[in-house]
Amino acid sequence: MNVSKTAAIYKDIQQTICSTLEKADGTGKFSLDVWEKEIGSGLTRVMQNGSIIEKAGVNFSHVTGDFNENMAHLLGEKASKFEATGISSILHSGNPFVPTIHMNVRHFELDNGSSWFGGGIDLTPMYVNPEEARWFHQTLKDICDKYDTSLYPVWKNWADDYFYIEHRHETRGIGGIFFDRVAVNSNSDYEKMLSLTTDLAHAYPVIYAELMKNNGHRSFTEAEKHWQKIRRGRYVEFNLIYDRGTKFGLESDGNTESILVSLPAEVEWVYQHQPAPESAEAKTLELLKKGIEWIS
Amino acid sequence: MNVSKTAAIYKDIQQTICSTLEKADGTGKFSLDVWEKEIGSGLTRVMQNGSIIEKAGVNFSHVTGDFNENMAHLLGEKASKFEATGISSILHSGNPFVPTIHMNVRHFELDNGSSWFGGGIDLTPMYVNPEEARWFHQTLKDICDKYDTSLYPVWKNWADDYFYIEHRHETRGIGGIFFDRVAVNSNSDYEKMLSLTTDLAHAYPVIYAELMKNNGHRSFTEAEKHWQKIRRGRYVEFNLIYDRGTKFGLESDGNTESILVSLPAEVEWVYQHQPAPESAEAKTLELLKKGIEWIS
Repeated sequence: MNVSKTAAIYKDIQQTICSTLEKADGTGKFSLDVWEKEIGSGLTRVMQNGSIIEKAGVNFSHVTGDFNENMAHLLGEKASKFEATGISSILHSGNPFVPTIHMNVRHFELDNGSSWFGGGIDLTPMYVNPEEARWFHQTLKDICDKYDTSLYPVWKNWADDYFYIEHRHETRGIGGIFFDRVAVNSNSDYEKMLSLTTDLAHAYPVIYAELMKNNGHRSFTEAEKHWQKIRRGRYVEFNLIYDRGTKFGLESDGNTESILVSLPAEVEWVYQHQPAPESAEAKTLELLKKGIEWIS
Repeated sequence: MNVSKTAAIYKDIQQTICSTLEKADGTGKFSLDVWEKEIGSGLTRVMQNGSIIEKAGVNFSHVTGDFNENMAHLLGEKASKFEATGISSILHSGNPFVPTIHMNVRHFELDNGSSWFGGGIDLTPMYVNPEEARWFHQTLKDICDKYDTSLYPVWKNWADDYFYIEHRHETRGIGGIFFDRVAVNSNSDYEKMLSLTTDLAHAYPVIYAELMKNNGHRSFTEAEKHWQKIRRGRYVEFNLIYDRGTKFGLESDGNTESILVSLPAEVEWVYQHQPAPESAEAKTLELLKKGIEWIS
């Protein structure tokens, strides 16, 4: 079982992520909460009301427990114990021109010998900037290509499918990459996936620092702020209705405050809100679709 | 099959509810949207930005369709067609001293002969006023007692259990009554449940008018408004994670905007928000528990 080794590395990266983000924000500081429950323990780091970052949660956890029937059904595996570790993070800016971003890396093992990694990074701009979207996807592709050029196309489509808000017929944002159940059958498999997930986790705050630098100083109108709050409503809908991590966390009696720190601060729901035709908001809606190839 | 008869009556009551609420609010007006989908049709009436009511949805629907496997599993019934009608409503005030209220009445029939009613009214104050809570429960009890004095105690507990936010270990509000699958086996059963549900639906705007009259003029601080937005976050969590009506609606490709008009306008999530000890907010939290007997 390698999860403990992975956990030690992920725990260090959590700290690096937070210090990089603090530097990029300038004034915001991460608090640290340690939680311990029957299922395991975690470190929740939260920044609220920074100069660009309005609310950020960077969670590390390392848990172990009985592999119950629910999990067995969900995962199609037979086992009696599981062990898992991961970093999970969402960053929200107060500036509508700075996107919301999400990153997760995780390593899961069962005592029947099964072991796998999952994770990804995806971006949710309130105003899609196609140039930035291409750069974001290219950055992810470059990381994937270092390991295997067949990964990006598959994981990019997986993100399109996963981050889809069925009842709105729209994607959560412009996607990114998403992968799950990448099996570890040998030591070299393990080293590869550990390296790939740590590359992703390291790239995450660097990507966001760039997005903050490009957009964090931009002034915005009340109408643009209002649009941001409405789009955040969609984010909440996705996280509470569809997101498997949130569901699994809440159902397994995880740490509610750590799980729901992912939700944005100020949110708004307006009945039948429709952006004006040809507006920047309408153009963004047109780009919240599956299957857009940002990199040609 | 009596659903069409019920539907005609419910449709009229929807209008009465809206006109009573418009009168009580003074300035707000309900819009009307008619929707038609493969599954059936509905009338969605919405008020936004009234003088006391900030956002109100009063939905009527009458739907019919194939009884699919999902429903069969959920309801433990075998049938090939279903028909259903109902009124579903949630009212949010901009004033933190005016509670949020929810009402639903519904009649469901299958082509295997099964027929039942469900519904209820429940109240979610941001600041629990025990005297008002007693009056609210007494009003519901009086309606139930007209039909059968055994109903209120059972339906009151049912509301406590149903409107429970498991991951927060708190109830959504001070409850009320909730009932489901009340079987209709004879014409007198039907007349009784039709009458009881229409009594409830008629009482609903009258109850709210009273709460608006008592509290709608009260001034409030920014801190009280902030607390209201945080409490609304819990309401959103309940509706998106647990509420069966919302789930059923979104999964059956119902009318998304009509279903989610139930969500409050402005909402806020703050990491680990804790009210000050002994504050009015802390006292409210202490009353968000199952099993409080408001009427002794």
